[in-house]
Amino acid sequence: MPSQTDSEKIYNKLIRKIKRIKNIGNAEGLLRWDQQVMMPNAGTPARSQQLSALSSIQHELLTDEKIGKMLDEIDEEEISKERRSAIREIKREFERAKRLPTELIEKISKASSEAFSKWLKSKEENDFSIFAPNLEKLIELKTKYAEYIDPDVAPYQVLFEDYEPYLGLEIASDTLSKLRKELVPFIEKIKESEVKPDRSTFENNFSGEKQREFAQHVLDILGFKWEYGRLDTAPHPFTSGTQYDVRVTTRFEDNLLDGLFSTIHEFGHANYTLGLPKEKYGTPLGESRGFTFHESQSRLWENHIGRSRPFWEYILPELKKKFPSIDASIEDVYKTVNKVHEDNLIRVDADELTYHMHIILRFEIENDLIENNIEVKEIPSVWNDKMENYLGVRPENDSEGCLQDVHWSHGSFGYFPTYSLGSVLSAQIYNSAKNDIDRLEEKMRNGKFESLKKWLTEKIHRYGKRYTTNELIQKSIGEEFNPSHFIDYIKNKYSEIYEI
Amino acid sequence: MPSQTDSEKIYNKLIRKIKRIKNIGNAEGLLRWDQQVMMPNAGTPARSQQLSALSSIQHELLTDEKIGKMLDEIDEEEISKERRSAIREIKREFERAKRLPTELIEKISKASSEAFSKWLKSKEENDFSIFAPNLEKLIELKTKYAEYIDPDVAPYQVLFEDYEPYLGLEIASDTLSKLRKELVPFIEKIKESEVKPDRSTFENNFSGEKQREFAQHVLDILGFKWEYGRLDTAPHPFTSGTQYDVRVTTRFEDNLLDGLFSTIHEFGHANYTLGLPKEKYGTPLGESRGFTFHESQSRLWENHIGRSRPFWEYILPELKKKFPSIDASIEDVYKTVNKVHEDNLIRVDADELTYHMHIILRFEIENDLIENNIEVKEIPSVWNDKMENYLGVRPENDSEGCLQDVHWSHGSFGYFPTYSLGSVLSAQIYNSAKNDIDRLEEKMRNGKFESLKKWLTEKIHRYGKRYTTNELIQKSIGEEFNPSHFIDYIKNKYSEIYEI
Repeated sequence: MPSQTDSEKIYNKLIRKIKRIKNIGNAEGLLRWDQQVMMPNAGTPARSQQLSALSSIQHELLTDEKIGKMLDEIDEEEISKERRSAIREIKREFERAKRLPTELIEKISKASSEAFSKWLKSKEENDFSIFAPNLEKLIELKTKYAEYIDPDVAPYQVLFEDYEPYLGLEIASDTLSKLRKELVPFIEKIKESEVKPDRSTFENNFSGEKQREFAQHVLDILGFKWEYGRLDTAPHPFTSGTQYDVRVTTRFEDNLLDGLFSTIHEFGHANYTLGLPKEKYGTPLGESRGFTFHESQSRLWENHIGRSRPFWEYILPELKKKFPSIDASIEDVYKTVNKVHEDNLIRVDADELTYHMHIILRFEIENDLIENNIEVKEIPSVWNDKMENYLGVRPENDSEGCLQDVHWSHGSFGYFPTYSLGSVLSAQIYNSAKNDIDRLEEKMRNGKFESLKKWLTEKIHRYGKRYTTNELIQKSIGEEFNPSHFIDYIKNKYSEIYEI
Repeated sequence: MPSQTDSEKIYNKLIRKIKRIKNIGNAEGLLRWDQQVMMPNAGTPARSQQLSALSSIQHELLTDEKIGKMLDEIDEEEISKERRSAIREIKREFERAKRLPTELIEKISKASSEAFSKWLKSKEENDFSIFAPNLEKLIELKTKYAEYIDPDVAPYQVLFEDYEPYLGLEIASDTLSKLRKELVPFIEKIKESEVKPDRSTFENNFSGEKQREFAQHVLDILGFKWEYGRLDTAPHPFTSGTQYDVRVTTRFEDNLLDGLFSTIHEFGHANYTLGLPKEKYGTPLGESRGFTFHESQSRLWENHIGRSRPFWEYILPELKKKFPSIDASIEDVYKTVNKVHEDNLIRVDADELTYHMHIILRFEIENDLIENNIEVKEIPSVWNDKMENYLGVRPENDSEGCLQDVHWSHGSFGYFPTYSLGSVLSAQIYNSAKNDIDRLEEKMRNGKFESLKKWLTEKIHRYGKRYTTNELIQKSIGEEFNPSHFIDYIKNKYSEIYEI
């Protein structure tokens, strides 16, 4: 081995410090998982304090001037390209963090823990006023947060860049406008179509226990590595964890399809996490590229696999074995799983098409909240008006309106757009996979997903944060980010189903 | 409110720092619970690093010179007695910690995480040699640890004082000698008795699910507050958590009684934790007095309640409702649940009497290991010889011998004696409760435990660490620590059962 340069030595020392911070962050992640999946109700006051301590200590360790000094001392010419990209990520985190006072971090952590339990109560009692003061507080704190990081940029942009640092808010905004322009009239046409797929086959009081067994079976089929993960239930499914230990959650509702697609979606996240290189655990090279790419993975599995004909040719007989009361043809089921719910109010229950309207609505509202264009108390009416404008339905109460999502209770403003960006990207990635992988759809039809998983890991997962979002898109599929793939895909698919 | 003295101001600042450290410690506790109850197998490498980061950061924060300075600056005359006692505990922790290098703490944390997974494998494959190198490493590290804390005292004493800081190793050692002297011949007599209670009634392939339901029912009867806790299973049951969120684990074996007593035992721990004052969470005044007192609580519920006639008069009909195949009289069952298993090799399956022989054996071996009188590789033969000497049985393999307990894999040397000390103390506490509480046994016979729980909380739990072990015994029951209560109790009980 050649002797290390000084910069390499400093790099190794720096990485040890970063690993320690990431380990504390992963501990925090476990506490958050536990809070939503395992924790008894009364545990909130202590848990809030624990989370706040963990988040503030990470902040202190990250903003330690020794880290700044090391970052200055490393001569990037003296280290490998791969390491240079790790430095890019560490620098970005360091520079954002050092602008933030520890007390603000602690306040946000505590406020979001408290807000989460108030949101639960608010949703349960269908009373927005319970949650509103907590939301106001969080908006105030997160606006301050954004101003600390960059007072010269619109606060919403700063917040958005926490979730998607590289693609740019302008591209996000343009993409959402394009989707709105293209899809609102298209959804109108679908509503006028005489094709009316029926979901009642799957609404049949299926037992939770059997649904759980089937979810496990689906994960088996997709090749989930159980020794590296778990499946549990949560009211609002999510996936968290690391390449050593990934925690998938799902939910089992009256309609069999909700839980099934939730499981497949979360599998996509988990499969990304488990594809990250183990030897880079705790460093930027062992972490996912970010929310846009993460969502591209979950949507690829949920929509391009899970809602495709070939997949259903394989899974329908399996489903019938488990639930013998199901009696439907593959064509009917294909239409059913892609049905546009005309009266659906809930984002997580939405089809691939109307889904984006839910996102656009949230994007506009959170943007207006952070930019002080509307007040918290106006949210319910603004929400309901937009639902009527974009989707022609109006929530009757806030639980099925502005209280349905957990995100704002976590202080996550700027997160929602990454859902649409990820969906859009997933169409682009899927097209590329189909080009590269021999007889991909035939493999799906036979329940074989190994080559797709291998392709995804090779093209995307194994790089961690080595490339920026734009670079990784270019590197993996040889193109720029381009929403037209998605728009073509979705129009073709739905034109065929709805015969328009 | 009178204006604060300077010392009070500093005290409040100090407590904020201590709370933060305790919150990180409680996060660590949750990660350890998760590792044993929820974590997928492959998660160990990442979990070890996370635990190591959390434990080293606590150490760094605790040994921060600012804490030393605050401790120096507080004039104890200027603060309340209660606060003075919190300072006593913080000082003790600070002074022990500041003698320890952070790297050693990190090494121990990492080594014990690795040792735990090796111990599991070693036990499963019944091969001591898998675990032996890890154990050697831990002994080496913990001996160093003891030397750093106090080079002038025997290292085993230093380690013991991590678990029981105030009672003194001499009292522990004397107590164990006394138990050995009194109980070994007494056990001999029992073996010669013609009374042979039968456990087969309870060995009947009872389903795990039904056992779980019954365990939940028992916790309901004892008054477990589910909103503050959970019940799960673990191969080696334990209880952890805080007054806001306590996690009980138990196990369901072929013999119904094992799981039942495990559940009651762990309930005793949980009940102590939940009796700690909520408003003192994160401070010494909101933490349990320590291992001796904790074990006194679990043993009180397990033995003085759970293995008593009055309790069985209440619980037997409940048990029969759940498991209709059980057909035994109260007198038979009372003997059965107190049966001395003549051929039992497993500590956690032992009766109240032979239990202490298991502890004495471990105490002697770990003492000899730390004091370098024996080597790790000798453990299996030394263990088996002692089993033969004290209990007249010899393990056929190490899984049922020296590999049975998890403690050494955690690096917990000096912990075992607190089990016997706690048992002995529980007899003393129970006698006092019986004096104080009107018709206690009649209440037990009717499934009423509120007044006992109230008494325990009032006399013991609510004080946290306000008093030292000796002071708290004095304060709660007006006596010194005295093993004769236990010896009288156990001899009376077993003389009656075995007609000797």
